[in-house]
Amino acid sequence: MEHVKSIPCAVFGASGYSGVELVSLLHNHPHFSLEYAFSSSAREDAEPIASLYPQLAGQLDVILQPWHSDLLSQLAQQVRVVFLALPHEASAAIAPALINAGLVVFDLSGAFRLRDSSAHFQAYGFARPDDLPTEIPYGLAEWTTLIGTEQLIAVPGCYPTVSSLALKPVMSLIDGVPMVNAVSGVSGAGRKAAGHTSFCEVSLAAYGVATHRHQPEIAQAIGRDVIFVPHLGNFKRGILATIYAPLKSGVSQATVDKAYQQAYAAEPLVRLCQQPPAIKNVVGTAFCDIHAVVHQNHLIICAAIDNLLKGAAAQAVQLANQYFDFAPALGLQQRGGVV
Amino acid sequence: MEHVKSIPCAVFGASGYSGVELVSLLHNHPHFSLEYAFSSSAREDAEPIASLYPQLAGQLDVILQPWHSDLLSQLAQQVRVVFLALPHEASAAIAPALINAGLVVFDLSGAFRLRDSSAHFQAYGFARPDDLPTEIPYGLAEWTTLIGTEQLIAVPGCYPTVSSLALKPVMSLIDGVPMVNAVSGVSGAGRKAAGHTSFCEVSLAAYGVATHRHQPEIAQAIGRDVIFVPHLGNFKRGILATIYAPLKSGVSQATVDKAYQQAYAAEPLVRLCQQPPAIKNVVGTAFCDIHAVVHQNHLIICAAIDNLLKGAAAQAVQLANQYFDFAPALGLQQRGGVV
Amino acid sequence: MEHVKSIPCAVFGASGYSGVELVSLLHNHPHFSLEYAFSSSAREDAEPIASLYPQLAGQLDVILQPWHSDLLSQLAQQVRVVFLALPHEASAAIAPALINAGLVVFDLSGAFRLRDSSAHFQAYGFARPDDLPTEIPYGLAEWTTLIGTEQLIAVPGCYPTVSSLALKPVMSLIDGVPMVNAVSGVSGAGRKAAGHTSFCEVSLAAYGVATHRHQPEIAQAIGRDVIFVPHLGNFKRGILATIYAPLKSGVSQATVDKAYQQAYAAEPLVRLCQQPPAIKNVVGTAFCDIHAVVHQNHLIICAAIDNLLKGAAAQAVQLANQYFDFAPALGLQQRGGVV
Amino acid sequence: MEHVKSIPCAVFGASGYSGVELVSLLHNHPHFSLEYAFSSSAREDAEPIASLYPQLAGQLDVILQPWHSDLLSQLAQQVRVVFLALPHEASAAIAPALINAGLVVFDLSGAFRLRDSSAHFQAYGFARPDDLPTEIPYGLAEWTTLIGTEQLIAVPGCYPTVSSLALKPVMSLIDGVPMVNAVSGVSGAGRKAAGHTSFCEVSLAAYGVATHRHQPEIAQAIGRDVIFVPHLGNFKRGILATIYAPLKSGVSQATVDKAYQQAYAAEPLVRLCQQPPAIKNVVGTAFCDIHAVVHQNHLIICAAIDNLLKGAAAQAVQLANQYFDFAPALGLQQRGGVV
Repeated sequence: MEHVKSIPCAVFGASGYSGVELVSLLHNHPHFSLEYAFSSSAREDAEPIASLYPQLAGQLDVILQPWHSDLLSQLAQQVRVVFLALPHEASAAIAPALINAGLVVFDLSGAFRLRDSSAHFQAYGFARPDDLPTEIPYGLAEWTTLIGTEQLIAVPGCYPTVSSLALKPVMSLIDGVPMVNAVSGVSGAGRKAAGHTSFCEVSLAAYGVATHRHQPEIAQAIGRDVIFVPHLGNFKRGILATIYAPLKSGVSQATVDKAYQQAYAAEPLVRLCQQPPAIKNVVGTAFCDIHAVVHQNHLIICAAIDNLLKGAAAQAVQLANQYFDFAPALGLQQRGGVV
Repeated sequence: MEHVKSIPCAVFGASGYSGVELVSLLHNHPHFSLEYAFSSSAREDAEPIASLYPQLAGQLDVILQPWHSDLLSQLAQQVRVVFLALPHEASAAIAPALINAGLVVFDLSGAFRLRDSSAHFQAYGFARPDDLPTEIPYGLAEWTTLIGTEQLIAVPGCYPTVSSLALKPVMSLIDGVPMVNAVSGVSGAGRKAAGHTSFCEVSLAAYGVATHRHQPEIAQAIGRDVIFVPHLGNFKRGILATIYAPLKSGVSQATVDKAYQQAYAAEPLVRLCQQPPAIKNVVGTAFCDIHAVVHQNHLIICAAIDNLLKGAAAQAVQLANQYFDFAPALGLQQRGGVV
Repeated sequence: MEHVKSIPCAVFGASGYSGVELVSLLHNHPHFSLEYAFSSSAREDAEPIASLYPQLAGQLDVILQPWHSDLLSQLAQQVRVVFLALPHEASAAIAPALINAGLVVFDLSGAFRLRDSSAHFQAYGFARPDDLPTEIPYGLAEWTTLIGTEQLIAVPGCYPTVSSLALKPVMSLIDGVPMVNAVSGVSGAGRKAAGHTSFCEVSLAAYGVATHRHQPEIAQAIGRDVIFVPHLGNFKRGILATIYAPLKSGVSQATVDKAYQQAYAAEPLVRLCQQPPAIKNVVGTAFCDIHAVVHQNHLIICAAIDNLLKGAAAQAVQLANQYFDFAPALGLQQRGGVV
Repeated sequence: MEHVKSIPCAVFGASGYSGVELVSLLHNHPHFSLEYAFSSSAREDAEPIASLYPQLAGQLDVILQPWHSDLLSQLAQQVRVVFLALPHEASAAIAPALINAGLVVFDLSGAFRLRDSSAHFQAYGFARPDDLPTEIPYGLAEWTTLIGTEQLIAVPGCYPTVSSLALKPVMSLIDGVPMVNAVSGVSGAGRKAAGHTSFCEVSLAAYGVATHRHQPEIAQAIGRDVIFVPHLGNFKRGILATIYAPLKSGVSQATVDKAYQQAYAAEPLVRLCQQPPAIKNVVGTAFCDIHAVVHQNHLIICAAIDNLLKGAAAQAVQLANQYFDFAPALGLQQRGGVV
């Protein structure tokens, strides 16, 4: 398989929190080679990633460089896959040119996730470009089949990943609207300094109650309305979703357990747990941990992921593994995490 | 009003987290005088509370002493009110004697909260003593009327306090089972060292899913079944409850807002908030902050308290204020908190 | 003493972390009345401080307003004392006018602390105005005597406060250069969002090694060169200084203890401790805790303060108490803290 | 090199914080195979390590088992190397038998570090056994040469590792006693629950001022008296040491830099840094980061390690690599960490 080592790739937005995790995963991956790491934070004359992330000194000798559109033809000749860890609108702006140049694009932003145009516009405040592929798979990895001819894959958001992985196996058992209570670490807000993510300001609280742009994304992924309340928690990484859903009459714990087993027994990156998962169990991993209990004719699901890995970078790599027919967890089994 | 200053009181369990908050509140209260602070941690020959809580040196010169049953008659002569911040079973064991000696007892444990004997036994694993007053008010302060003749008052638990304050004004608008997702700071587990509350082990996770002893207490307080999922969070103090409840058809935001206004507009220790409250907003205070939003025919309520104050010590003092006809927030308006 | 209640005052920079603590202390002070709280964050038409600090709702009903220079004469008529919690250069710019208008100015910035002009310029990058009072006391409260005729008082910085309080009693016993290792909570960097104080970036580390502007200030306060290494710690409030100093030959523990007793036995806001103080012991208080051990002919001092209180707002109020001949700790004995 | 994969080893104390890191490192190491993981926490009938550390489920399928002395001959037949992550006295008790059975022992406790018997007894409160090898190397990895015939290697303590790595290259430049101010994460206190490491009690403070058992160990390692003040910090992993040392007259920054370059330029696990290292830079790594500044004829060194890796498990593996003539950083270059 030494030849597959030669799948060259590039990362855009390499200095953001998801970007640097992508860089780290791809750099250590046995079958991808990272050729370019673009970042608008890079100085013109190339900047070692360790100057922004000193923890990577001596471990990850990657050079950041700024992107210029006149690099496109060179890029298209030298790499096959591009990962975009850019702001939503920046992704929307650059993706068409990359696709047209023949590159396969895994986009980690929200630019291409929502299929409904008006829902997209309402959530993101801009219209998507016209010249896009007809089919843009929504890459919830355990529920997607990539065949290696797709041009653009929308990598799900962090909250939708954990929520949908938790809910999809049991949707046929649920009667009504699931309610998703989710708490995210602060890294979910990105690396840019802001008042509400300042050290002294962070304190567990809900935000965007019933108005968060991930609500329509979850609804699309599970095929049903959902009530979604995100919270900011006082920790760096990880999301814990506690989900409440009314069950159809007579659904037993055994039925629920069987549904999860059928969905995930063969999936290496989903762990079905006997106890409610703690955030620390998944931080630095590509796992999604799920625990579900039937109580008073409701289902209570606790699910946890690392928002920057399974909720972003690791899921993108998992999708790329699938795209190129590698084992799904290839390069994703080490504990770690840069930020 | 100088004469009311003379209401002498005692605290049992004075060195625990709720106990020391009680000691601090009573010591600074204009109309109570703290005469005794009993603690099984105290050495026989009296121990300054600052030797256990050095932050109190020079601020709170209270002496801890061990309790012995032969102190009872002396205690009954010298104080009028006793606050019990003891383990559940210890409270159950000592309360009858204190009541029989003529003392008014505010009990912060769970020993006297559940009216149903079998629910009590299932939750706490011991039967309550027989020789108790016929009426033991459940002291959810904003929803209780004490007239000053009661002998024993059960102070609500921390989770039930925030959950019930959030739900009671709107129960008539709710159609079905409310779901309470609550995250508590680690001080809720008490001062005793334990593996799961060790610094390196704490990480946001649910526990006691649908089996916590506060579930029947909330159900009793709101008069309806409830689904309750407590979580341990990585912070010291405070509880955030995010509550999901299906609404009766057609209930509007205005109706909800009016219900809260009617319940709490005149209450000095409940704040109705325009934004979801953060834990930090209530830590060190006796406030309960509530924010409620109608969405998709559900009510989403975010409510926060300091578990050791409004969820324990401050509510006990608020009840004692009511018992003696003082202003409800007397002695509770300073920001603070010992632990 | 009811007449002294009438000392009216104003705070500039009222929405910053030190500013809001000042507002809280003055609002609750028995002998000062807060007439104005100026803030550049305030909207033109007055803004409740609780809209920036929701924890203060129902507790501190103070209105923030923007400052305009045409308010000066009105201000000068209505208040006697002004507290400046402004950026250094803003303090330097506004103080002369306030003084000329007859106001007493307590300045919490670094604008007026360093007596040596060139040291000042090197530390702060701007020259001080010319039209200043000849004498500007450096207000290390326990070591300053204010007589009530001063026009401008420079309130010490947070690091210099804890370092100087720890060192001044024993300077005559020290032979050589003291080394101050100090760790500050993140609130010391102020409320403005910045990358290095973002939640995900904060991690214990030294900064400004031997170049911090508080080094010359400490040197000035103790009258000797000093080596000072500040660190940013992953907590919100408080400073712990661990100080290493070579002793003159033969200095005993008893001599050291006696020096501290002589300096501070009568001081209500310095606590001499038998154990090394933890940050939590002083957070929310106006205390400075000091513990000193003689070992191998060196003195090892551990000292702790709350950077926003004893290191800023509370020390300013302590100085104002002294200025008006009130008890030094008046209004400073409650536990608390807003941020 | 496939044959070297066959070096079988065992870990004692596998469920402690250092132990589980050892298990993880050895399990993933290319040339060691972990045959036994002994733990007194294990139930008799074997317990998956993931039942104690659920984060390891699906990643580290190691079975814990209790140790019994009648397993000794079997152990001696099946493994070559034993790593002891036991309490000091337990290590002292078991090591002689393991050595006599022909096993190579890397001991992570303090049982065999101090060469001076009376210093050892004073520090640890027990005498070492008599039947020990004459030579027990003190394994500060970058300063030790193992030739593969040693029977027992004392792995340095966490504080001594970072302190000695920082000081040894410059000892000839220092004139007098170095002062080591070190702050450790709470995992340094081990996994056993205790009051001072409870979540609500941890707060930055010095402890064991000038009396910590690592002080004589550092002194032995650097060959000179030292003043050492450890602190407990409010973070899980990592140690930051800030060291102050008077320099011989005229020592320049260039001389210092050259000394560090000579010592460590070829060492893969020491990073010489342009900025003071933050704890987060080393957490989850086997690196020691060092930054040194000359100021006022003193040297100020900031050095950081992960206490459980470079300060314990990773250093032990680094020594074992050296023992078997592998590359020093083999199996130590991934980011990670279990706890």
